[in-house]
Amino acid sequence: MPTRSSIVQSRHNQRVKALRAALRRGINEAGEIGIEGPHLIEEAMRSGAEITAVFIREGSSMISLPAMEEAILLPREIFESAVTTESPQGIAALVRAPVWSLDDCLRERVPLLLITAGVQDPGNLGTLIRSSEAFGAGGVLMLPGTVSPWNAKCIRASSGSVFRLPVISVQPSEAFARLRERGIRILAASADGAIPATAADLNAPAAMVIGNEGAGVSRELLAECDGAIRIPSPGPVESLNAAVAGSILLYEAARQRAAAARKA
Amino acid sequence: MPTRSSIVQSRHNQRVKALRAALRRGINEAGEIGIEGPHLIEEAMRSGAEITAVFIREGSSMISLPAMEEAILLPREIFESAVTTESPQGIAALVRAPVWSLDDCLRERVPLLLITAGVQDPGNLGTLIRSSEAFGAGGVLMLPGTVSPWNAKCIRASSGSVFRLPVISVQPSEAFARLRERGIRILAASADGAIPATAADLNAPAAMVIGNEGAGVSRELLAECDGAIRIPSPGPVESLNAAVAGSILLYEAARQRAAAARKA
Repeated sequence: MPTRSSIVQSRHNQRVKALRAALRRGINEAGEIGIEGPHLIEEAMRSGAEITAVFIREGSSMISLPAMEEAILLPREIFESAVTTESPQGIAALVRAPVWSLDDCLRERVPLLLITAGVQDPGNLGTLIRSSEAFGAGGVLMLPGTVSPWNAKCIRASSGSVFRLPVISVQPSEAFARLRERGIRILAASADGAIPATAADLNAPAAMVIGNEGAGVSRELLAECDGAIRIPSPGPVESLNAAVAGSILLYEAARQRAAAARKA
Repeated sequence: MPTRSSIVQSRHNQRVKALRAALRRGINEAGEIGIEGPHLIEEAMRSGAEITAVFIREGSSMISLPAMEEAILLPREIFESAVTTESPQGIAALVRAPVWSLDDCLRERVPLLLITAGVQDPGNLGTLIRSSEAFGAGGVLMLPGTVSPWNAKCIRASSGSVFRLPVISVQPSEAFARLRERGIRILAASADGAIPATAADLNAPAAMVIGNEGAGVSRELLAECDGAIRIPSPGPVESLNAAVAGSILLYEAARQRAAAARKA
């Protein structure tokens, strides 16, 4: 049962306004993410995220939830003024967004990072975050132009990884300088990259850049990277899906590292 | 300019009914697929698919299209009675669905195949078809429970590969028997598979089974396979996205084959 519960009758209530802002902008001024529906709320809880408030539409069949900060019961019209989905399931929540720094991404002895540059599809971003966690990357650095990781589709596609893995927004010049100080090579994924991924040394500290779904990594950004790698493929497809391409590069890095560890 | 063009005034016109059926059921009785919007039509044309009719809403800005079988101009209300999207861009088409047999999938000396068992997300299926073509698979075999490959989202995610690569519906018992006759091992992808993909011999003829997004490959189907392979990953994620998992296995097979070819 919730720790506290209250009934709110005004759509101008501060917590209702905080939910509305979070659901519309991805994250509100207090650093809270808005999520809708029981499935995402469970996912956030399983991932250890801090739920700061739960909003329940009056008349919804009560969902069993563990103890939490605050449960707020809302009349139908106030609930619906805050949520964004067309047929909300009668429950929404605010979750404290994890706050990470670049150092949090660099805790491994031999760092592996993913950098997104203009990934626009939230499903692709979420899938990339999920694969990053699976293949041992220390974090995901998002350059300007990347979709919000707090988009509901991204959270869902990440299968909760977005709550666990450091995911941070960075500016390329500053971030690239700091990565180079740490001896990390910045490698752009590009269909006409010079080095096949299998021939690239991904045992060394590496950050791999995945570009926009349609346009790939821009020429300007490519010029700022230390090299460009491609995924060798015998077939006639000019490019792979962005989430698939990034995931395969992460797999290839993990494969090379495991093979080197077996030899050592 | 279209070869022939006509104006249709009835929503019971045979070609309008054929479009409506194709868009609702994925494929109509005449074996035609319905597609909406200029982007998908261009994709189909680039892939060499046979366009059997184009439907243009009266008043749409004329899109330049090469010669085709038939262009049909439709009053707004008749056009909208046939299409399924909420804001159609004023153009739709019927495309001859390619007809493939299992033999078409087995033309390579050392066949590589993907088998889908209950993949439900059309974006995932399309991505798997795209990756199959990229990594040199001979085709995709769909077991019952797989979403239609002629879903608009699947066509889009396949980036046109669905028009070029053999994609066929099969029954497991019959198909598995024919694959075994050809010396092809049937390997299920499973998070708790016994063999890591890197240790599996994917140089040999292989068909890899990808299961449902939530449930994976069912226990019954697993029992009918020749083995189960997993994707080794150091991180704590229990499973990868289905399209990513299938694509990584295809990549791993292509990688092993290229490495063996270099040695030979």
